[in-house]
Amino acid sequence: MALSVDLNSDMAEGFGAYRMGDDDAMLSIVSSANIACGLHAGDPEIMASTFAVARSKGVAVGAHPGFPDLWGFGRRNIPFSAGEIERLVAYQIGAAQALSTYAGHPITHVKAHGALGNLTQQDEGVAQAVNNAIKAVDPSLVCLTIALGHQERLAREMGLTCRSEIFADRAYTDEGFLVHRSKPGAVIHDAAEAAARVVRMVKNGAIETVTGRLIVTSVDSICVHSDTPSAVSIARTIRDALEAEGVTIANFLR
Amino acid sequence: MALSVDLNSDMAEGFGAYRMGDDDAMLSIVSSANIACGLHAGDPEIMASTFAVARSKGVAVGAHPGFPDLWGFGRRNIPFSAGEIERLVAYQIGAAQALSTYAGHPITHVKAHGALGNLTQQDEGVAQAVNNAIKAVDPSLVCLTIALGHQERLAREMGLTCRSEIFADRAYTDEGFLVHRSKPGAVIHDAAEAAARVVRMVKNGAIETVTGRLIVTSVDSICVHSDTPSAVSIARTIRDALEAEGVTIANFLR
Amino acid sequence: MALSVDLNSDMAEGFGAYRMGDDDAMLSIVSSANIACGLHAGDPEIMASTFAVARSKGVAVGAHPGFPDLWGFGRRNIPFSAGEIERLVAYQIGAAQALSTYAGHPITHVKAHGALGNLTQQDEGVAQAVNNAIKAVDPSLVCLTIALGHQERLAREMGLTCRSEIFADRAYTDEGFLVHRSKPGAVIHDAAEAAARVVRMVKNGAIETVTGRLIVTSVDSICVHSDTPSAVSIARTIRDALEAEGVTIANFLR
Amino acid sequence: MALSVDLNSDMAEGFGAYRMGDDDAMLSIVSSANIACGLHAGDPEIMASTFAVARSKGVAVGAHPGFPDLWGFGRRNIPFSAGEIERLVAYQIGAAQALSTYAGHPITHVKAHGALGNLTQQDEGVAQAVNNAIKAVDPSLVCLTIALGHQERLAREMGLTCRSEIFADRAYTDEGFLVHRSKPGAVIHDAAEAAARVVRMVKNGAIETVTGRLIVTSVDSICVHSDTPSAVSIARTIRDALEAEGVTIANFLR
Repeated sequence: MALSVDLNSDMAEGFGAYRMGDDDAMLSIVSSANIACGLHAGDPEIMASTFAVARSKGVAVGAHPGFPDLWGFGRRNIPFSAGEIERLVAYQIGAAQALSTYAGHPITHVKAHGALGNLTQQDEGVAQAVNNAIKAVDPSLVCLTIALGHQERLAREMGLTCRSEIFADRAYTDEGFLVHRSKPGAVIHDAAEAAARVVRMVKNGAIETVTGRLIVTSVDSICVHSDTPSAVSIARTIRDALEAEGVTIANFLR
Repeated sequence: MALSVDLNSDMAEGFGAYRMGDDDAMLSIVSSANIACGLHAGDPEIMASTFAVARSKGVAVGAHPGFPDLWGFGRRNIPFSAGEIERLVAYQIGAAQALSTYAGHPITHVKAHGALGNLTQQDEGVAQAVNNAIKAVDPSLVCLTIALGHQERLAREMGLTCRSEIFADRAYTDEGFLVHRSKPGAVIHDAAEAAARVVRMVKNGAIETVTGRLIVTSVDSICVHSDTPSAVSIARTIRDALEAEGVTIANFLR
Repeated sequence: MALSVDLNSDMAEGFGAYRMGDDDAMLSIVSSANIACGLHAGDPEIMASTFAVARSKGVAVGAHPGFPDLWGFGRRNIPFSAGEIERLVAYQIGAAQALSTYAGHPITHVKAHGALGNLTQQDEGVAQAVNNAIKAVDPSLVCLTIALGHQERLAREMGLTCRSEIFADRAYTDEGFLVHRSKPGAVIHDAAEAAARVVRMVKNGAIETVTGRLIVTSVDSICVHSDTPSAVSIARTIRDALEAEGVTIANFLR
Repeated sequence: MALSVDLNSDMAEGFGAYRMGDDDAMLSIVSSANIACGLHAGDPEIMASTFAVARSKGVAVGAHPGFPDLWGFGRRNIPFSAGEIERLVAYQIGAAQALSTYAGHPITHVKAHGALGNLTQQDEGVAQAVNNAIKAVDPSLVCLTIALGHQERLAREMGLTCRSEIFADRAYTDEGFLVHRSKPGAVIHDAAEAAARVVRMVKNGAIETVTGRLIVTSVDSICVHSDTPSAVSIARTIRDALEAEGVTIANFLR
């Protein structure tokens, strides 16, 4: 039977006159786009226009809520209570729902951004908060979660639809966590190496750790970065490698 | 036949540690609350908690979108194009929809705030933009508009449900516009005088202008302010005066 | 010989239309005012007007830098590196210098706000960063520090002029730290009790801990809060109690 | 006698993770850099690091205050009173003074940004407000003004040191104003053409208008843009053309 996997990337991360990454090029490669919602990046203009381009290219879209921290691009842990996170996430899902509806291409998933996303993997309270927000606002939205984390497990327990992502260019510890960026080898910079590893992980249905161990998990989506100079070529290399091995790239709505 | 009118006020206008007005007291007086959506005032915490209190008191709630201008509290004309206003308003409606759904008390109307609201009365392009946003995001939402303005007329032409408000404490010109705050007599500070005038306008189905002229219009709602020291007592006086004359206070969902 | 102590309070903590505390009343009681600099609270308007009122009342003024976190009012630990804190503090000192010069009443001290202030007591790197900023921008500015903390010790080692404050209404642990607000007895709500304790601490030149222990330290200034409903009456009670005991209230420039 | 002119450009216009233009390359071409101060662009990190690079390259630095409008990049007219503009500009000058002192390279001029800059040319009240701020905070700072505008004339009347700039790539009306960007020919896109025109204007000591008229004025500085893809090559072409004609590029401190 033919394998199929989603390819997702973060987009619409500009703000006003600022731009981040080449969204148009990425939207020709990925099958799902996570749209920043205005608190860590993004504004109504870039949200609406990116929803419209995604629609024209048949790319599924989701809300990509983060901490309200434009200065830190959502990459810093801002101390919020679980309840505050619920409301922050609900707010951003709603904004994305409205602007995607406005653009004629409603969102179908939610993925937490940056520091908030990392916390959903490791902090049960944060994971539960994000899931609570999704369930309260629209339980039909797919939770796109980091494989092997708390959010994935809790989402399934809550009856939410859950899809799990792995990272194309990040090394994993034997515990299934991402190797911290400060450590050597944390990021795989070689596109061909990243692509080959992705193909293996998709085919194996398992994460490869730094010691070569395999951890079996759902591999529903591959996360590719969009905000580095080589992002487009890396994403293209990964897509080409997957397709060359007969893996179909398709969003969760397939 | 018994007369009935809505009494609305702007709320949830705090931000973080800041508070503005006595929302709890006002929610015991009005029948509809317009909830700030985080761009000119408000944040997810106060939005969610105010939706919850409104629910417990049976007060209808609406989105109260404004310009993204916390510093100016949404009272300054920020130069945005009509298209940008559509997206700004859509964004805020969505945020309010999500948080009101989260709080178990979904919004049922939209009213533009401050400078944006004033523009909807006088600038046809802005009025159309706000209506377009409502229609695109959720055409079942009631447009709460300033009586005699462009938004009211255009909303009806577009097939949106429209309700018109008059101001309890603001003088009107013979053209049906508000007397500018810089002019003498622009604001009626005496609660009893404001209340008596409101009762007459509701009974007459007409605005009273500064020259004593009556302009027939729909009087579906009375707007009372919430952000002045005497706001609560003025609102209470108006409500009592209306009820003493047999006018029922009820939201648009009646 | 007559005792003298400074009485300081945080001010100008409004933002745009928002107000926090009764600055005019407090400026008639304290001898030094710490002026928010626009990142956690404050804006150029309230900064300039508060500098002007302080000038007219003979109250010394200082910069009160905090984390860039209007939403959290500077009370949350935002993860910044020591270098970033240096630049954040330098930025805010400069803004306060310019606006106080504009108002004809230049600042003469710097005191870190909220979460940043707490970190200066307990985190050596943060303490050093704040001191580095003061030294780089204007080494003639007085460091107003929390008694018994890292910033006090390091400022003296660096040759900066340092004055130490104690809190009028906060309980101290035997280690000289503030009892966390979540603990019972952390805040002394009774004005008379707080005033009596302040008088003892000033006379003893020592902090009183929750177990009754005395920790000898410099007591150059008493910090009174400005942002609670009873702030003005508590501050007045403390000032009156000190003066009744023959203690002069005077700023550091005496 | 040898001609000399300053070459200035706006810099440090990033914010957090966002970047705008290639500041390092521009700092190898210009003689003066206008540093954004955190309200329309810029943050303490990029301010301090740009001051440090400018120092290492011998480029003079100035504060570049704008409206508090990160979303609009300072290019929108936000309605502020003249008094508010004074305080906004004072605030930003102070922040730039502190961070440039911190970086060991104090600012020596002030130039208004974007919409605020345009208003200083055409609106006497705004021009006076910016000048008042400079005079109040530090009257030794050079006013870098748009040639032929209100700010230039008023600065001279107030006794401030004033230097006038012309635009390398913008067409002028016969009244000495910039042709609005919406009009054809408003921007000169050809680097060689812009450079040849700049050389003529510097040699003639006069602006060239769209009809070929010359308006004699001080030409103390040439403003080159930094935020377009071709900015670096245009700036380099202009500098080379000036030097080929024997014009020295030097800042105001020469």
